[in-house]
Amino acid sequence: MAKPLVAFLTDFGTRDHYVGVLKGVVLSINPDATLIDLSHDLPAHDVAYAAHELTAMYRYFPAGTIFVVVIDPGVGSARRGLAAEVGEWRFVAPDNGVLTGVFRETPPKKVVELTERRYARPTVSRTFEGRDRFAPAGAWLSKGVHLSALGRPLSDFVMLDLPVPRFDIGVLHGVVTRIDRFGNIITNLDRRSCEKLTEGMGTLRLTVGTRSIGRIVSTYSDIPPGEVAALFGSTDHLECSAQAASAADQLGVRVGDAVELSRS
Amino acid sequence: MAKPLVAFLTDFGTRDHYVGVLKGVVLSINPDATLIDLSHDLPAHDVAYAAHELTAMYRYFPAGTIFVVVIDPGVGSARRGLAAEVGEWRFVAPDNGVLTGVFRETPPKKVVELTERRYARPTVSRTFEGRDRFAPAGAWLSKGVHLSALGRPLSDFVMLDLPVPRFDIGVLHGVVTRIDRFGNIITNLDRRSCEKLTEGMGTLRLTVGTRSIGRIVSTYSDIPPGEVAALFGSTDHLECSAQAASAADQLGVRVGDAVELSRS
Amino acid sequence: MAKPLVAFLTDFGTRDHYVGVLKGVVLSINPDATLIDLSHDLPAHDVAYAAHELTAMYRYFPAGTIFVVVIDPGVGSARRGLAAEVGEWRFVAPDNGVLTGVFRETPPKKVVELTERRYARPTVSRTFEGRDRFAPAGAWLSKGVHLSALGRPLSDFVMLDLPVPRFDIGVLHGVVTRIDRFGNIITNLDRRSCEKLTEGMGTLRLTVGTRSIGRIVSTYSDIPPGEVAALFGSTDHLECSAQAASAADQLGVRVGDAVELSRS
Repeated sequence: MAKPLVAFLTDFGTRDHYVGVLKGVVLSINPDATLIDLSHDLPAHDVAYAAHELTAMYRYFPAGTIFVVVIDPGVGSARRGLAAEVGEWRFVAPDNGVLTGVFRETPPKKVVELTERRYARPTVSRTFEGRDRFAPAGAWLSKGVHLSALGRPLSDFVMLDLPVPRFDIGVLHGVVTRIDRFGNIITNLDRRSCEKLTEGMGTLRLTVGTRSIGRIVSTYSDIPPGEVAALFGSTDHLECSAQAASAADQLGVRVGDAVELSRS
Repeated sequence: MAKPLVAFLTDFGTRDHYVGVLKGVVLSINPDATLIDLSHDLPAHDVAYAAHELTAMYRYFPAGTIFVVVIDPGVGSARRGLAAEVGEWRFVAPDNGVLTGVFRETPPKKVVELTERRYARPTVSRTFEGRDRFAPAGAWLSKGVHLSALGRPLSDFVMLDLPVPRFDIGVLHGVVTRIDRFGNIITNLDRRSCEKLTEGMGTLRLTVGTRSIGRIVSTYSDIPPGEVAALFGSTDHLECSAQAASAADQLGVRVGDAVELSRS
Repeated sequence: MAKPLVAFLTDFGTRDHYVGVLKGVVLSINPDATLIDLSHDLPAHDVAYAAHELTAMYRYFPAGTIFVVVIDPGVGSARRGLAAEVGEWRFVAPDNGVLTGVFRETPPKKVVELTERRYARPTVSRTFEGRDRFAPAGAWLSKGVHLSALGRPLSDFVMLDLPVPRFDIGVLHGVVTRIDRFGNIITNLDRRSCEKLTEGMGTLRLTVGTRSIGRIVSTYSDIPPGEVAALFGSTDHLECSAQAASAADQLGVRVGDAVELSRS
């Protein structure tokens, strides 16, 4: 049997006790769990952003991996907690839509609400359900507990309205979904949608804010120094980049800004 | 036998070689150790801050966990190094008071000074005792060496004068001990002390700087947008928070600032 | 047999999906690999900086450790990928000189170009070779694949011209190679070169920018409050430091600035 992997994705940052506590809780329940830090530095409280990041990662992990996702602006409120089986992976998260991207790509086989008190900590606080509810649920799953033991089936889980590319006559409308560490401006325009626009004819022009980018290249080092160009990045979505510089800073672009792709 | 866990808490940051070196040293001595990153992003040189964070974490870890704590502004000076057995956990740290919170909560069974050269690296530098003394000591403990083999018993270890809540007539005086990633302002006012103040009667008012907060809520999402409220957070201490915003930025509060709780 | 260690050093930062993806790729190929985060917060695109950091770390790791190093401004270009056997360690990296410091210190036994497609992902993108080429190569090495199976021998790998101390009459010229989290200004002046300058006689004076530092101490806590002094730091190179403060901020010094050591 493969060793049980528990992978954490949070917005807790790394300077407080929160991440350490999650790890301790999991290891106290299952000392054999192998812990993986995906990221703890996601933008605070930004469920949509986290949904995008998680979608970009989970498929690379081996079957059996358990993802504990704690981006939870509604902690302590009436929002539910859930566990889901998706392909060969399992997820534990607040029911706030953070799994939307995963579910869209791979419809879940089973989703349950985390109602079974025996798989939570004895006292569930209203300020740190990551510790009291999500980490324990992930740990118990990693120990072999079945998903359906964690609670009752849930079918009306929250799905976010994550923006999808929208076709207009000769134009594809999208938005900036993320800006990465390097300042690359990542859009929701996937390669397939972009290719539909041209149908093999003509060249493309990407408009971001007031800036129009006619150059679509294959990789970062093809961008002339000082310029901004577009390319399909690591998740096969169109992004704007500068060579060894931040395109986001140069263009003054932010997450949520509109982008347009058109034939030129 | 459980696998040996070695958990690191440092102020080394994550962009230099220091953390990598600690990990390499431990694994070279005990390749079977499982390493856990608690945090490396604690405020530089702030022993009291680290003491609070460690206190908030250690109890969640399984018996046998070894904590290697390196917040060490006195590196290379005459300050001693120590190892301690506390409950079922063990700690290795400079003798600068960083274990004060742990020792207050769980009096140590045994404390030794790290005098035994055979459990340090052959040359102990005066600028990186984390590498040369603390990481090796933690690694040897994880390999089964007894605490008492690491050096001679130590009874006059340093204890910090960490501020405790102080009762006055109808008022509880405290301080801000930490500000977390989300901008929550965490005080040293624990729930039990606060409850003593009201004895079940009346409502409470928290004064932070020039701001008076009459609203004590149960969780973050109960706070009206734009307002600041108080609540008992993850360590059961009173904190000031804003919903999806930084209370610390809004109130201009810093660690060490005084707070007051009174009946209103 | 020791468990296989795969240690990551990147400039990916920790708020995007890149690091998570690397980890997933390695674990999907070798679920028994133990993953180590060295740093993901190196300055973006700075190959020389990464070369220094890696040199400061690798020797502390046990024999058999595999280092996956992804600082890769030339991703997707014609620059090659390589794997190297150095002492008892192995390295996977872009062929951009990031291994220069390691190779200088420990000449490689064998270097190969990563040409064998079977040990890369089926499709190698031009924007994320860390995922498609370097992480898989590291994972396969950790599974027991021989270095020479990864590709053809490579002898003309890139070596950076990392600056070495230069002797002039009575003066040793160097540069600032790094500034660490604490603001310590680390130079390329190693202890042996510095000792040659004095040959046991006289005292030394370090000039950094417009500031002349006559005080060479043994450790940080020997520095009087408010002053800047020089000392030999964790890698036995001369550095400028302030006590519990940033020397770099005080002196306005940056990586690449010239320094001079002379007899006073």
